[in-house]
Parts: sequence; C-alpha cells; structure tokens
Amino acid sequence: MSFGGGKAPGFSARWVPLPEGVVLAPDPDVLPAGFRAGGVAAGIKPSGGTDVGLIVCDAPDVTSAARFTRSGTQAAPVLITRERCKLDAIRAIVVNSGNANAATGSQGYQEAARMQGAAAMTVGVPEDQVAVCSTGVIGVQLDGTKVVSGLTAVRPQLRADGIADLQRAIMTTDLFEKRASLEVTLPSGPVVRLAAQAKGAGMIQPSFATMLCFVQTDAALSAQTADLLLGVCVQRSFDRISVDGQLSTNDTAILQASGASGVTIEPESADELRFGEALDALLRHLALLIVRDGEGSRRIGRVTVRGGHGPNVERAARAVANSPLVKTALHGGDPNWGRIVQAVGMALVDTAPLPVDVSIEGVQVCVAGEAIPFDEGDLAARVEGDDVEYTIGLPGDGFETEVFFSDLGHEYIRINAEYTT
Amino acid sequence: MSFGGGKAPGFSARWVPLPEGVVLAPDPDVLPAGFRAGGVAAGIKPSGGTDVGLIVCDAPDVTSAARFTRSGTQAAPVLITRERCKLDAIRAIVVNSGNANAATGSQGYQEAARMQGAAAMTVGVPEDQVAVCSTGVIGVQLDGTKVVSGLTAVRPQLRADGIADLQRAIMTTDLFEKRASLEVTLPSGPVVRLAAQAKGAGMIQPSFATMLCFVQTDAALSAQTADLLLGVCVQRSFDRISVDGQLSTNDTAILQASGASGVTIEPESADELRFGEALDALLRHLALLIVRDGEGSRRIGRVTVRGGHGPNVERAARAVANSPLVKTALHGGDPNWGRIVQAVGMALVDTAPLPVDVSIEGVQVCVAGEAIPFDEGDLAARVEGDDVEYTIGLPGDGFETEVFFSDLGHEYIRINAEYTT
Repeated sequence: MSFGGGKAPGFSARWVPLPEGVVLAPDPDVLPAGFRAGGVAAGIKPSGGTDVGLIVCDAPDVTSAARFTRSGTQAAPVLITRERCKLDAIRAIVVNSGNANAATGSQGYQEAARMQGAAAMTVGVPEDQVAVCSTGVIGVQLDGTKVVSGLTAVRPQLRADGIADLQRAIMTTDLFEKRASLEVTLPSGPVVRLAAQAKGAGMIQPSFATMLCFVQTDAALSAQTADLLLGVCVQRSFDRISVDGQLSTNDTAILQASGASGVTIEPESADELRFGEALDALLRHLALLIVRDGEGSRRIGRVTVRGGHGPNVERAARAVANSPLVKTALHGGDPNWGRIVQAVGMALVDTAPLPVDVSIEGVQVCVAGEAIPFDEGDLAARVEGDDVEYTIGLPGDGFETEVFFSDLGHEYIRINAEYTT
Repeated sequence: MSFGGGKAPGFSARWVPLPEGVVLAPDPDVLPAGFRAGGVAAGIKPSGGTDVGLIVCDAPDVTSAARFTRSGTQAAPVLITRERCKLDAIRAIVVNSGNANAATGSQGYQEAARMQGAAAMTVGVPEDQVAVCSTGVIGVQLDGTKVVSGLTAVRPQLRADGIADLQRAIMTTDLFEKRASLEVTLPSGPVVRLAAQAKGAGMIQPSFATMLCFVQTDAALSAQTADLLLGVCVQRSFDRISVDGQLSTNDTAILQASGASGVTIEPESADELRFGEALDALLRHLALLIVRDGEGSRRIGRVTVRGGHGPNVERAARAVANSPLVKTALHGGDPNWGRIVQAVGMALVDTAPLPVDVSIEGVQVCVAGEAIPFDEGDLAARVEGDDVEYTIGLPGDGFETEVFFSDLGHEYIRINAEYTT
C-alpha cells in the first residue's frame, strides 16, 4: 500500500473553477503566516509510516471554527474536542492516523484527553485550545504512549513549510495527497492566504471512511465569521459527497485564522464574499479529491436534482449517489438510466406515478416518467469520460441540490473484503 | 447465464424451521387444488427463455390479497393492478419477464392494460379479476404483441402440475428456483395445501432488483383473513431482506385461496394459527432464498437489534444490513465489528455517545460502546460459515427486529458494472 506521495489531480475547471482574484500559491508547502506544522512516525501505523501530526497557530488571539460527524458513535477524540476545547479559539490540533480511537469507551476517552494534554504541553498553549483528531481502525485501544512520544519527536520539527509532513500524518488508504494553498486578492487590495489539508478515500483498511480537513488562513476573522464561512462551505463540499454512503465516527473539519497578515475580513463586505468564494472553491476541490480517490474509483459522477419540495430533492439526490446500481453502472461506463429512475422511486415512496425527468451528460432519456428515444451510441460514448453529469427533474421548482459520488468497482471489494484483519 | 434449473437450498433449520404439523408436499410440481398454471417462451427475453406465465384459479369465489412496492416510480403493471383489479378476488395472474414495463409512461400503461384484457379473454374470467406483473429491464417499451402471442400459446398448456413452467417464466438472473409446496395438517383434522413461487436475485441484468411471489392454497379463506395473513407474513419475510438496499419498481406478492379442499380457515382459530405459521415459514424460506441468490453472494447474514425505541431499532438494523462495509466484511469472512458500530452510529445521528452492544455468532465484542477482549481466532473461524448472526443491543428494551442480508462481492460488480447494455 502506498502512503501518499502520489500527485493529486488539479482543480477541476468543470465543477470547481478558481474564483476571480484567486490563484494557487507558488509555495504550496508553506503554511499561511502564523502557523507551523509537522508530522512523525510514532509506530501506530503497522507500516511504520508518518502517523502523528501537529498544527500550531502562534497567534494567541487565533479564531477558529469546527464541524464534526453527527454519528451516534462518535470517536473519543471527537467527544473530547467538542466537550473540552474552545471551538472558537483552537490554537493547536494534534492528530494521529492508524487508529480511530472509536468504540474504545472510557479508556479511549482517557487516551484522547492525554493526547490533548500532551499536545498542550508540547506547544505551550492552554489545554482547552487543543483539538484532537484520530483516523484509522475502529475498536482497538489507542496506545497513547506512542502518541506522546510522537509529540516529543515532532516538536523540534514544527515549521512553516511543514504541510507535507502534516499531510502524510493524516493519510491512510489515500492514494494521493489532498491539499491546496491559495492566494486571495481581496477587492480592498491586500492579499491573504488560505491553505487546507484533507484526508479520506472512502475507506480505511481494515476499517472505514473517515475524512479530516484542516484549514489555515493568515487573515483575521471574527469567530462568528469563521463559523459562518466554515459552516456554509462544509455544507457545499464535504456534506455533498459520497464514496459509499457511510458516515464516519471521526469526521472533523477545522478552520483556524491567525490574523498574521494584518488583514481583517469584515463581515458582509466584498472582501468577505471573495474570501468565502476562495474557501468554497478550496473545500470543494478537496472534497472532489476524496471522491476521486474513493477505492477503486474509475470515474466520478455529479447528480443534480431540481424540484418543488426541498426534502424530496435532497432524498432523491442522496438515493442516486448512494445506489450501488447507479455506482456500478457509472464504473462500467453504462448509460443504464433505468437505475436512476429506480433510485428516485425508492427515495420517494408512495408518490407513484411520479413524473420524473432524467438527463445524462445533457442527453434527455426520460420525460415525465416515460422513456424517450435518444442516440444510444452517442450517450454510451459520453459516459466513458472521467466524470459524468446526471440531471433529474421532479415536479415543481424552487429547490436544487447536487451530490458528487464515486463509482463502485472491483477495487472496493478487493480492499474491503479481501484484506481481512 | 443460466435461466433456472438449479436446485434451491432446502429449508434452513437455523432460521426457518418447519412448524409443527407442516411437511414438504410429496409432489412439489403440483399446484393446490383449484389452480392451473403454465409458461412459454414468447420472445421477450433475448435469451429465448420462458418469459410469459399465467396462473388461473378455477373457483369463481376465489379470495385473494396482494402487496406491492411502495416505489414512487411503480411500473405500469403495478399501477394497472392496483387501479383496475379487485385485489380481494384475483382469479388470474399474467406475468412476463425480460421487461419491467417501468418508466414507460402512457404507452406502457396501455400495454399493461392490454396484457390484463388478453389474459382475461384467454382464461374466461372478468378483466377486473386479472393481476398483471412484469420483471426485467426498465425504460424500454414492452412489446405487448409478444405477450398476447404468448398467452395464446400458454392457454392449452395450463395444468395442475404447471409450477415448474410458471417458475421459469418469472426467473431472470436467478441462479436457482425459489419455490416450495407444503402440506399443512390443521389442528381440527383436515390437511390443506400451500404453494408459492418467487423470483429475485437482487438484480436483473442489465437492470435491477425485482421480487415477485405468487402463493396458492386450496383452503377457503375470507378475503379479510387472506389480507391479514399475507400482510403479516410479507412483513416478516420479503420486508426483512436486503440484497443491495434497492427498492424495485415492480415488487408484487399475491395470495390466492381457491377453497377447493372444502376446508375453511376460521378467523382466530387454532387452524388459522397453524395455517399462518405455515405461510410464514413458506415466505421466509423463499425470502431467504432470494438473499442466498443475491449476485455474488457467498454467505448471508442476519442482524438482530434490540432496544427501547422502535424506529431506532429498525433504522439500526437496516443500516447494518445495507452497509457496503458490513457486506464486504461478511463476504471476506472478516469479523470486522468496527464497521457494525459505524453503521449503527450513522443510523442514529446526534445520539453520541451511544452505548451499543455487539455480538457476532454469540461472541460479544463490544459492551456499551467499548471494545472488550475476545478470542480473535475463534471468532474468525465462526464467520467463515454459510451464514453469520449479528446481535446488536441499544439502550432500553421492548423492541426487537431482524434483517437478513446478502454479502457484497466481486460477482455483484461483474454483473452490474461489466455487463453493459
């Protein structure tokens, strides 16, 4: 298994164009001003790879925001961070891979608290300003001694250009890195920086999906602005993807703003709009990389659903994105649109006969629930590309949503059925 | 592809024992008294296999009951049957395989009506006592002329021992037949007969899951009793299985009672209880055969969930049964119970920390959300059998449910991704 080093695809011009005034940073390994990071191998991953990481913001007046999995079986680090950390003032983040510290009960909770305390001492910040993240196998106790040793080792290695080390510390079955650094020229003149590192491939062998994302900026944001922007952008990115429809015990996204650029993003200003667009593009880019890296994924899809009833629009989009039939058809380059109609019907029970419209790559195949003639050869060719667009119309209008999803192929089975513990 | 002929596994003593007073009928190809059936090849299946079937009850005072998919995109035959057929007095059932007549709009609706009318003329019963069923590819117009020709051909072949022909007419990707005939000795003395034929393998290449089930008895039942018994038994059988979590556009289950035995099942009698137990065992047996025949299925699982909140118990059971991670682990013979905790947490969002208990094949692995030590070699050996039991405990008690599910392996991907239209 490869622990990173692969090259991630670039920004997708089709689905995530870079907004006006936003460019890729020329030095992608360098964090925004005010941050240092690092990662070391501490013996948690059986492979011996990098597995403990640390991010610290040197600004005492840091602001931050965070979002977590809604799982009923949240991992210990999620519980600790939610309960014992000031989420609007996170100075440091300690993370390990190779063990999710989930389904580990009170012992796991104590180990997560130990990670928080050790990280606080390592970088000299208050314990309640340290967030804790883990990713890896579920149901195995985490050896906190290894994490503490890792923190001792990582301390002298924390540096402004530590992004690559941090990225390696959070990767598990990821085949390529998921990170990007942007420079944002604000309408009022100054330039601020925005960087993010994510992980997730739908699965962690031998366990399952976890996504983490850490975002740093040198802009100054109020805690309210940070929370608002992160909330909106997570909803439009990590909340709109599916590799296998499985919610993780450990999902965590954290935004930290150092203010080290001296540039303040004022609420409801043109600067905030531009900054928000950049954050949106950054997180959507990383979210798409996670979908693209879904195990065995050959191509990815986007389903867009429009209609007059918001919850139905959402349910239909999720049902299509999570249907193993739609996913296998996508994998096989098969324009089998009957499976889309089936998934929509399953999502919206007791509504028959439902007049649903379906188009694939702009070719309409079903109008008001009825098959219409189309050029099958043309459509077959269109669904053989790297990504496929599905558009579904339900009765009425006013609501629209989208979900990005990976396909389902042999590699998924191989990784999840044939690698046994 | 094989269109039937394979031998189905017998009754599973573990999950579906035969009730007291119930035995397998010695002549399994013979319908209960009062019924005739047949099937012919009418050119709808590209393979040239048997694809049009007919069942007729010769008793004018037949009683019946039916259950249908709740899909919002119900196929035309489902719509026609629900709207234009007396569901408590179904004399005949016409069925075709090779085309689902779904997503076919008004033209499909007319073809389904034509099937109903042609079948009524073929067997000389009123049109509103004919049910129509289809199974096969979605989104392709059904050639009703072929069905009508098939009905002409099947008419002289209708016979009391026509079960095998009928079975072939409803099979698609099924690798083996799914039927059984029982003799039920009632506590009051007489013997009645009960037979059923089902189809379903989770998928229909190149389309998807459809299940059909036809049940006949020579007992006399009131329409109310038929409806009550079918409703309860469908809920405990076909409603409790999952191959891939995908609801079909065409699912239909029909029970017909000819009364030709002269034996009446009185409501709330010991006879009704015995008869109900037999019907329950019959439908659960066929439901398990569908799960066992899920494409690529190597082993099947049963998840039982107990707890104090009915909807949560149901949600957790469905989430485990439909999780691709649990299914791939089952396929691989991997006792990866962290995936079960994850699926439960996903089903019950915003309840963390949830004290969930998990046992696999009687080995407890997680107590109140915390991993406990167990003999890993012993458990690994236990999950390598043909079927695996998962037991989940949620807080509280008073509710219990179960779902039977197939695993997820390479054959599923091969059939659904690699056979392109």
